[in-house]
Amino acid sequence: MREIGIGLLGFGTVGAGVVEGLQANGDLLAERIGARLVLRKIADVDLKKDRGVKVARGLLTTDAASVIQDPAVNVVIELIGGTGVARKFMLQALELGKPVVTANKALLAQCGAEIFSLAERKGTDIYFGASVGGGLPIIRALREGLIANRIESIDGILNGTCNYILTRMETENLSFADALREAQAAGYAEADPALDIDGHDTAHKAAILASLAYGVHVPLSRMHVEGIRGLDEVDIRYAQDLGYRIKLLAVIKRPASGGKGGADIEVRVHPAMVPVGHVLASVGGVFNGVMVRGDLAGDTLYYGRGAGRRPTASTVLADVADVARNILSGSPRRVPAMPRAAGKIGIRPMAQVRARYYLRLSLLDEPGVLASIASVLGKHDISIASVLQKEKGGARYVPAVIVTHEAGEKDLDRALRRIDAMKFVGAGTVRFRIEG
Amino acid sequence: MREIGIGLLGFGTVGAGVVEGLQANGDLLAERIGARLVLRKIADVDLKKDRGVKVARGLLTTDAASVIQDPAVNVVIELIGGTGVARKFMLQALELGKPVVTANKALLAQCGAEIFSLAERKGTDIYFGASVGGGLPIIRALREGLIANRIESIDGILNGTCNYILTRMETENLSFADALREAQAAGYAEADPALDIDGHDTAHKAAILASLAYGVHVPLSRMHVEGIRGLDEVDIRYAQDLGYRIKLLAVIKRPASGGKGGADIEVRVHPAMVPVGHVLASVGGVFNGVMVRGDLAGDTLYYGRGAGRRPTASTVLADVADVARNILSGSPRRVPAMPRAAGKIGIRPMAQVRARYYLRLSLLDEPGVLASIASVLGKHDISIASVLQKEKGGARYVPAVIVTHEAGEKDLDRALRRIDAMKFVGAGTVRFRIEG
Repeated sequence: MREIGIGLLGFGTVGAGVVEGLQANGDLLAERIGARLVLRKIADVDLKKDRGVKVARGLLTTDAASVIQDPAVNVVIELIGGTGVARKFMLQALELGKPVVTANKALLAQCGAEIFSLAERKGTDIYFGASVGGGLPIIRALREGLIANRIESIDGILNGTCNYILTRMETENLSFADALREAQAAGYAEADPALDIDGHDTAHKAAILASLAYGVHVPLSRMHVEGIRGLDEVDIRYAQDLGYRIKLLAVIKRPASGGKGGADIEVRVHPAMVPVGHVLASVGGVFNGVMVRGDLAGDTLYYGRGAGRRPTASTVLADVADVARNILSGSPRRVPAMPRAAGKIGIRPMAQVRARYYLRLSLLDEPGVLASIASVLGKHDISIASVLQKEKGGARYVPAVIVTHEAGEKDLDRALRRIDAMKFVGAGTVRFRIEG
Repeated sequence: MREIGIGLLGFGTVGAGVVEGLQANGDLLAERIGARLVLRKIADVDLKKDRGVKVARGLLTTDAASVIQDPAVNVVIELIGGTGVARKFMLQALELGKPVVTANKALLAQCGAEIFSLAERKGTDIYFGASVGGGLPIIRALREGLIANRIESIDGILNGTCNYILTRMETENLSFADALREAQAAGYAEADPALDIDGHDTAHKAAILASLAYGVHVPLSRMHVEGIRGLDEVDIRYAQDLGYRIKLLAVIKRPASGGKGGADIEVRVHPAMVPVGHVLASVGGVFNGVMVRGDLAGDTLYYGRGAGRRPTASTVLADVADVARNILSGSPRRVPAMPRAAGKIGIRPMAQVRARYYLRLSLLDEPGVLASIASVLGKHDISIASVLQKEKGGARYVPAVIVTHEAGEKDLDRALRRIDAMKFVGAGTVRFRIEG
C-alpha cells in the first residue's frame, strides 16, 4: 500500500491528539483512503515534556526546517499556533510546494492573503478545517456541502470557553467572575483568558468564515468585537424571563436590502440574545454550533466540540485524508482553498447595522420617567416592543428592561447617549442585540 | 470555460428544484467549480405539467434512455424515485461508465449492493448525498468529515413528516389523527402516509447510514421498525412531565460491550423519548437532525431541512459539483461510494438490545397492584428508576408510568407478557425506549 509521509510541527495538545488518532485509527484510515498515513517526523521546541502519547524517540526533533525539507514528508501539519514561527514554517512548506494542514485561526485571519496566494502560486493545497469549530465540519460544509448556495447568513457560537461560562452562569446562577474561575479550574479557560472572553478568538474565526462565504478579506480592525467580560448575571435572568438565552455570537450576513452582487456584508462579534426555542440556544457548555442560511438549503446547523485534543485532531486528520487523496489522484487544489469575491463586496460599518435590542436601564423610581425614555427612543425611530419593570424593593434606582423592534445601531447609539445623560438615569444603559 | 453536461431523469419536485438552482446559481457554481454545469436534457413521462420553472422546450423528452446515451451528457441525475425504472436507468448509466447522482433512498436501501458494485466495476461515481437528510450534509460528514473516526453511534431524526406531526401534537395538544390531517393539508404528508408514519422511509435512511458507518449491508427485513401511527397524545404529556420529548429515531450503534472489530451493530427505528435538554430534542417541525458520536470527534450534530425542493436540490448540486471535479481532475471514485466492512459485522437481534424504558400501564385502582407489577419487573432483572401515578378521577383503570434503568429488550418482552395477562391490568402496556 502506498504511503503518504507526514511531518508534524508542534507537539502540543492537538499535535498529540493527531499522533494518538493516527495510532488508534491508522488502519481504518488506510483502508478508507487507500494509502497509509505515516508519521515521519515531529518538531517541537520541547522534546522532554510528556505528551501523553508514545512515539519512537527518533521521530522527534527541534529542527522544524528539517521536517519540512525531508523528502519523505509529503504533507506538513502545522500545529504550533500563533503568528510568529508558524507563519515562517508554513510559508517554507508552501514554497517547496508541500501541502499544509493547519488549525491556526489567528494566522489565517491575519496573514491569510499572503498564505493563500503563495499556495495558489505553488499549485499546492492549504487545508484549515480545524481552524474553526474544532470537531464540527463547518469549513467543509461551507466549501463543499453548500457549494450551490448563496450564503445569506452565518450565526456561530465559536468559542467553547465563553459558551461554558455563559452556560454555567445561567444554570448555576454564577457571577461572571465565579464562572470564569470555574472554567479556569476545569481547564476550559487560560490563565490569561483575554483572547477568549474579549471575543478575539471568535473574531479570528468570523474572519475565516466570512472569507469562505463571500471571498472577501475582513481585516480584524474593521470588525465590531465585543466579548463577555464582566457580563452581569442579572441580564441572563432577564433574558430568561423574556424567553432568551445569551450567547457570544459571530454574525456574518449579507442583508437582503443590500441588493445582489455588490452588497456590503456584516461581520460582527458580540453577546446576543437568542430565543430559547432556537436550536442555537440549545448549544450548551463547551460545545460550538454554527447556523448557516443558504438560499437553497435554508437553515442548516453544525454542532460539536469546538476545541480539545481529539475533536480537533479528528478534523486535522480529515484534512490530511483530503490532501492524501489529492496526492494519490494527482489533483492538488481540487477545491480552491478560498473563493474569490464575486464583484465588489464591502464591510458594512457597525453604525449601519440594524437589529432588535434588549436595553436594561437604571431609572429613578419617579412618575413620568419611563415616558421620557420612550419619547427619546421614539424621536430616534426606535419603536418599543415590550417593557419589563421589576418590583422596586426600596432601591433608589430600579431596573427597567425594554425590548425594541428592529432599529438602527446609529439611532440607538444617539438615543442612548441622550438617555444616559438624563438626570433620572443611573448607571449606563446595558444593551444586547437580539438575533435568530 | 469547460462544460459538464447534465442529464436529468425525473422532473418532479426535486428535479424542478435542481433546474431552478442551476438557473439561479449557475454562475456562482461555475466560478466555484471552474467549469460550467450545463443542463442538456430532462426526461419525464409527463411533459405537460407545469413544474414552476421555465425550461427550453427542446430540453424535454419522454425518452430517458436517449438522455443517458447522449454523448454530451457527462453526469446523470436520477430523481425518478422508487425501485422500478429508476433502477433500470441507473444501471444503464453506470454500465456506460457515466457517474450518477441520486436521492433515491428506497433504491439504495434495497438494491445498493448491485448498484455500488456495478459503479465500482465500471470505475465510475455514484453520489447519493440527498438520499438522507435532504439539505443537511450527513452523508458527506460521515464519508469525509469524520473519516478518521470509528463511529460509535448515530441517532437520527430523519423524517420531516413524522417530526412535524410529533411537534404539532406536543405544542398544539393535537391528537395523532388531527396532526396527520394538518400535515396532509400543509403538504408535509402524503395522502397515503404509510411510508413516512410507519417508519419505512426512516428505515431506508438508517440502512444507508449503517452502510456508510460500518460498511455493512442491512436488509430491511432484519431491522426493527416501528412508526408513530396512532401514537397516544397522553404519552407526549407524560414525556413532558418527565422531561422528555418523543421523536421518531433511527438508532445505529456499536455497543461498547461488543468488543472491537467483529462486534455486532444495532440498527433500529422507533419512537423514543429524548431528554428535553438534548440538542436532538430541539429539532422541531419538518426539520431533521442527526447526532453522530465518533471516537475522536465526540458528538457532532447536523441539522437542516430533511426534504423539499430547494434543500434537496442544494445537496444534489453539491454532489454534481463533486462529480464535476472528479471529471476535471480525471479522478473518478476519488472517495469510494461505500466503505467495506472491516471484519465480520453482524446485526444484533432486537431481543439483545438494551435500553432504558418508559412504560405506561393501565391498572385497576386497588391496593398492592403496583407492588405486584414491581415484583414481576424485578424477577426479570428490570429495575425501576421512577414511578408516576396520576390522580384517579373515578375511572376504573388508572394510568401508571414507570421509568426503568437499563434493561434487556427480551427481559422486558417477557415481563410485559406476564404483566399484560394479569387480571388487574387493563389495556396493553405502552412502551417507549429512552435514548440520548
